[in-house]
Amino acid sequence: MKIKKLKPLLINIFKKHDLNNKHAEISADALINAELVGAYGHGLSRLKMYCDRIKKKVINPKPKIKIKKISHSITHIDANNSIGFVAADIGIKKAIDNAKKTGIGLVAVKNSGHYGLSGYYAEQAVKKNLITMIYTNAPPAVAPHGALKSLFGTNPICFGTPTGSKIPFILDTSISMINRGKIRVAARNNQKIPEGVALDKFGKPTTNAKKALQGIQLPLASFRGSGLAWMVDILSGVLTGGNHAGRVKDPFEDFSGPQNIGHLFITFKTTLFVKNYNKRIKDNIKTIKKLPKIKGIKEIMYPGQNKYKRFKVNSKKEIKISEIIKKDLENLKK
Amino acid sequence: MKIKKLKPLLINIFKKHDLNNKHAEISADALINAELVGAYGHGLSRLKMYCDRIKKKVINPKPKIKIKKISHSITHIDANNSIGFVAADIGIKKAIDNAKKTGIGLVAVKNSGHYGLSGYYAEQAVKKNLITMIYTNAPPAVAPHGALKSLFGTNPICFGTPTGSKIPFILDTSISMINRGKIRVAARNNQKIPEGVALDKFGKPTTNAKKALQGIQLPLASFRGSGLAWMVDILSGVLTGGNHAGRVKDPFEDFSGPQNIGHLFITFKTTLFVKNYNKRIKDNIKTIKKLPKIKGIKEIMYPGQNKYKRFKVNSKKEIKISEIIKKDLENLKK
Repeated sequence: MKIKKLKPLLINIFKKHDLNNKHAEISADALINAELVGAYGHGLSRLKMYCDRIKKKVINPKPKIKIKKISHSITHIDANNSIGFVAADIGIKKAIDNAKKTGIGLVAVKNSGHYGLSGYYAEQAVKKNLITMIYTNAPPAVAPHGALKSLFGTNPICFGTPTGSKIPFILDTSISMINRGKIRVAARNNQKIPEGVALDKFGKPTTNAKKALQGIQLPLASFRGSGLAWMVDILSGVLTGGNHAGRVKDPFEDFSGPQNIGHLFITFKTTLFVKNYNKRIKDNIKTIKKLPKIKGIKEIMYPGQNKYKRFKVNSKKEIKISEIIKKDLENLKK
Repeated sequence: MKIKKLKPLLINIFKKHDLNNKHAEISADALINAELVGAYGHGLSRLKMYCDRIKKKVINPKPKIKIKKISHSITHIDANNSIGFVAADIGIKKAIDNAKKTGIGLVAVKNSGHYGLSGYYAEQAVKKNLITMIYTNAPPAVAPHGALKSLFGTNPICFGTPTGSKIPFILDTSISMINRGKIRVAARNNQKIPEGVALDKFGKPTTNAKKALQGIQLPLASFRGSGLAWMVDILSGVLTGGNHAGRVKDPFEDFSGPQNIGHLFITFKTTLFVKNYNKRIKDNIKTIKKLPKIKGIKEIMYPGQNKYKRFKVNSKKEIKISEIIKKDLENLKK
């Protein structure tokens, strides 16, 4: 489907689910972006879930979002259980404003929901010539080191910086061996997942995506990854006033209440300490790209480069809609 | 050797190498702390290296450290190639002051050197009831994803938070499979290193510590770890005005100039967004500790807990001095 046809369709679906025009557009844009960068687990495959949560009143389509100024640099946002896209959009924009004013921005969001890709918000800050660090928690998927039960989300660590070129450096890495979204997509399509990334609910290794969803995802690098996941839970949950310690509900399976996810946005100017940041980062990337390469590697890529290429290529094409999603769209627009 | 005997001995050695009394004490304390927490690769095994660098005039024992106030929250420090301990001590103390004043502190340090353990500085901030994030770069040890040559340092990611109890949460994790310091200690003692953590200079896996030091350390989780290492190089090097892109000199091997390492300290108050942070983090930790455990695991530990226990136990004992270190101490005090 062409983007210019898909976007109004999505906006219409969100508006039918009581979102106002602006919130519907923010949400549609986020879903389309996920499709364009190839992050299908964060794209249209989630549309029905968002609508279901609105219907079941665990996402608030008409939120009264409170923005509390703590200082010129620091802001606290109570998203009143809005759809996550809207909360995160306000959060990153506030963080950008604060950094533009004072050099640094720190924005905490509570009572939010799943907001899609951290990198999507990081790009906004980078476009404004800021460095950004973004943290969010998520429903239990990864077991703490030593535990037999999932508690941490895949809790991404996201970092973005301008590069002095049009392709931003966006590191957006979950602390699990693979993204939960990819396992979901595999489960929907009856595909296998790689070995060594998940255990079933009995603690046994599995390549069955459905069994993995019921079981435990493994953190990267054992105790180190577990520690990073714990850090993200503290920064985005304990600190912000959001849910934490495994209490974020699974958006697909648990409609007993809102998710109350927390996000943390940190932003700062690139030129606080050096005048020639863009020149320095260009030199950094150029130096690294010139290193001798492993056989078969054509180019050493920085984080975000592949994603940008996918975005550029896919933006010129129609978005492929699977049969399952086609049905979702049909049902939801009624 | 008893600590109360070792400390004046170290202070004396540093003073003989032209450090003033205060700087000598800061440096002695940092080395002793590393021994007490069991991080021997950052302890007395480095004493001779520091003294050698002073003798060869690539560490400045009488630095003129410039502290530039960017705002009430933000500070830039030019350490004038002081010993890293002193630069980092000023950096974290400034970051603490800034956060106490405005809620958030951001301090960049340039022209510094190896400062030991990030966690040591994180503890200072946590004791003042602040959350902290600390980044530093280091000499080439880890190859970027796709490259055949080391360029990134082991570039630790450090995060600390108060826990509402006396044992702080300190995550201090290098992005390499194991710490370079551990490989150095193994090399000195002719011990093997684990499989899968390093390649020799020809790109072949090795368990020989000396060959690993000449070769490449592997980042954790492949491209994810490589991305995190790159992030740390940008935050601590490109942003601060320090060396980056593989230009930090190996302190043991390269005396052709100062290291010009950069550090970044971020600090903020725990109670910016919630009044009951200590209660929340206590609940977080308690909930996670209650999870069912893998067979053989007695307690789910949070990062920093083991280190704290080692510190407590070791503080009551004498510090073991190996024959090699004994010789170092004898030679250096002359």
